[in-house]
Amino acid sequence: MANDEFTSIRQWTVRSAGQEGDGLRVGIGDDAAVFAVAKGMEIVACCDAMIETIHFLRETMNAEDIGYKAMISNISDVAAMGGYPRYALISIGVPPHWTVDECERIYTGLYEAADKYGVRIIGGDTVATPDALHLSVTVLGEVEAGKAIRRSAAKQGELVFVTGTLGGSAAGLHMLLDARTPGRNLASGFEELRLLHQRPEAQVAAARLLIRCPGIGACNDVSDGLASELWEIAEASGVSVYIEQDRLPILPLVAAYAHTVGADPVDWVLYGGEDYQLVGTVAERDAAELQAAFHQQGLPFAVIGRVKQGPPAVWMDTEAGQKALAKAGYNHFQRS
Amino acid sequence: MANDEFTSIRQWTVRSAGQEGDGLRVGIGDDAAVFAVAKGMEIVACCDAMIETIHFLRETMNAEDIGYKAMISNISDVAAMGGYPRYALISIGVPPHWTVDECERIYTGLYEAADKYGVRIIGGDTVATPDALHLSVTVLGEVEAGKAIRRSAAKQGELVFVTGTLGGSAAGLHMLLDARTPGRNLASGFEELRLLHQRPEAQVAAARLLIRCPGIGACNDVSDGLASELWEIAEASGVSVYIEQDRLPILPLVAAYAHTVGADPVDWVLYGGEDYQLVGTVAERDAAELQAAFHQQGLPFAVIGRVKQGPPAVWMDTEAGQKALAKAGYNHFQRS
Repeated sequence: MANDEFTSIRQWTVRSAGQEGDGLRVGIGDDAAVFAVAKGMEIVACCDAMIETIHFLRETMNAEDIGYKAMISNISDVAAMGGYPRYALISIGVPPHWTVDECERIYTGLYEAADKYGVRIIGGDTVATPDALHLSVTVLGEVEAGKAIRRSAAKQGELVFVTGTLGGSAAGLHMLLDARTPGRNLASGFEELRLLHQRPEAQVAAARLLIRCPGIGACNDVSDGLASELWEIAEASGVSVYIEQDRLPILPLVAAYAHTVGADPVDWVLYGGEDYQLVGTVAERDAAELQAAFHQQGLPFAVIGRVKQGPPAVWMDTEAGQKALAKAGYNHFQRS
Repeated sequence: MANDEFTSIRQWTVRSAGQEGDGLRVGIGDDAAVFAVAKGMEIVACCDAMIETIHFLRETMNAEDIGYKAMISNISDVAAMGGYPRYALISIGVPPHWTVDECERIYTGLYEAADKYGVRIIGGDTVATPDALHLSVTVLGEVEAGKAIRRSAAKQGELVFVTGTLGGSAAGLHMLLDARTPGRNLASGFEELRLLHQRPEAQVAAARLLIRCPGIGACNDVSDGLASELWEIAEASGVSVYIEQDRLPILPLVAAYAHTVGADPVDWVLYGGEDYQLVGTVAERDAAELQAAFHQQGLPFAVIGRVKQGPPAVWMDTEAGQKALAKAGYNHFQRS
């Protein structure tokens, strides 16, 4: 890409100049952005990168999807703390084989997710890179002072919940990878699984219910697979986590696709990742009220297990008895 | 790099776990970091990336220098708004030809700069990348509410100042590139120019004096060369900027090296960049007091020109008369 094309991308990315207001004092177009923080709130900050060939393949993700998902994965991290997102900074490295049009489509996806979740893009950096596209997003949010939900806060006796179905992103990826074989299309009748992989959603509304629940314990977002997320909670909190296989929420379409291709959907739930649901723990006395609050807002909520005293570990009750779950998460396309 | 080596890097980067306190509620080790903002302050946020072969070559920058400079360039952006830095998030993409040891040395440089400027590294992402190393740093700082210094605030009649000498980074790079020729060493007697390129400093102390000055106008940090920075101020503020060539602060060592290699040091000042001094404008009535405040703290301060009414442009008085300065900045190793 020539330098004047870079200038074109840079100019395109500042379409939100003149965006000041509602707490934003200085938006894109200065050395740094400046914003005020609402009274009684603290800042939540996170940063996740997506790299071509490592986190996605061009065959499985459209340019818009890459932008959308990079933004969602960060908004999801803010949600995992109980917060809501406010601002984003975008660092993008563009190699020669990506066109200006494709870069603009990445930004279309970034803005689509940002607009949907009330996030303003306030800065970043657009640079050339020699080989793989990389996209690093920082999202800044707000959370009530002293109330952020930590993964280290799970306590013995609490129930384990998730805020929606799991395994769908891995099912969609399986289908998209399968369709790369020459002469093959997306599996007939399962095409919409694609969206579970390419267009995941962040659970901000759920996060805001969790933070108002007095009995809330720990929380993680499911970016690396349920087993890995529960392990993080178990280790950070010093507890054992027990879940029941037959309580895992799996979409019928995901189960049907798994059956068709001879895969086990439970593996996708445990080790797939990128579903961006929240998994957490809550005091038993508050669980029914929390569940009712979710249902009132039309949000799913499923109790899948319990926190117990014991060394950090994750166990699952299956038809064949109790099984220790490995700590492994999904490694995308990472080289070994 | 194998996956277990990645785990090693990831663990190494969380050496600052248990870093909570002084406003930091949740540090590295959860889905996101959480911090409180001091009363009466707003957040300053910026993000800059450094890419191997584009922004640096391994022959001209040691691993520690890469980390140090990536942190400094962001701290400098916070300083350019008049703020001071508090927190950083690091996104690093590591290709196979970089060793774990080299990555740890990058972090050594990041922490060295962070510690020097009171910055805590509170999060980020460590990922594999297929080719070039990339390092994207987000720095979050604080600035007095409503007081951030904008580049659009230059007004007719103000004086133009810089907070230190310019052109040194470009001189150092010239020397380092020259020494790449087989059989050549760093130019004798000029070795310390190297540090001006590899170990620049951010002008946070200067920024804090500027923000207390009632007559402060606009400010930028010199990341892309003086001409480019002044053009940004001229365009954002709708003014003409006039500077005088014989007032440009240039280190004697830089001038001597330029003489030795037959280069013009003024070109390095105008189009070199990465000096990370602040360039700004100040009301004439407050300039003397501001200069005195700088000198009291042992900080350099040089008036180099004046803001005038007129269309956005940058002019320089030279021995040969008045010259319009091109808008161009330095393009590093960027492909054309």
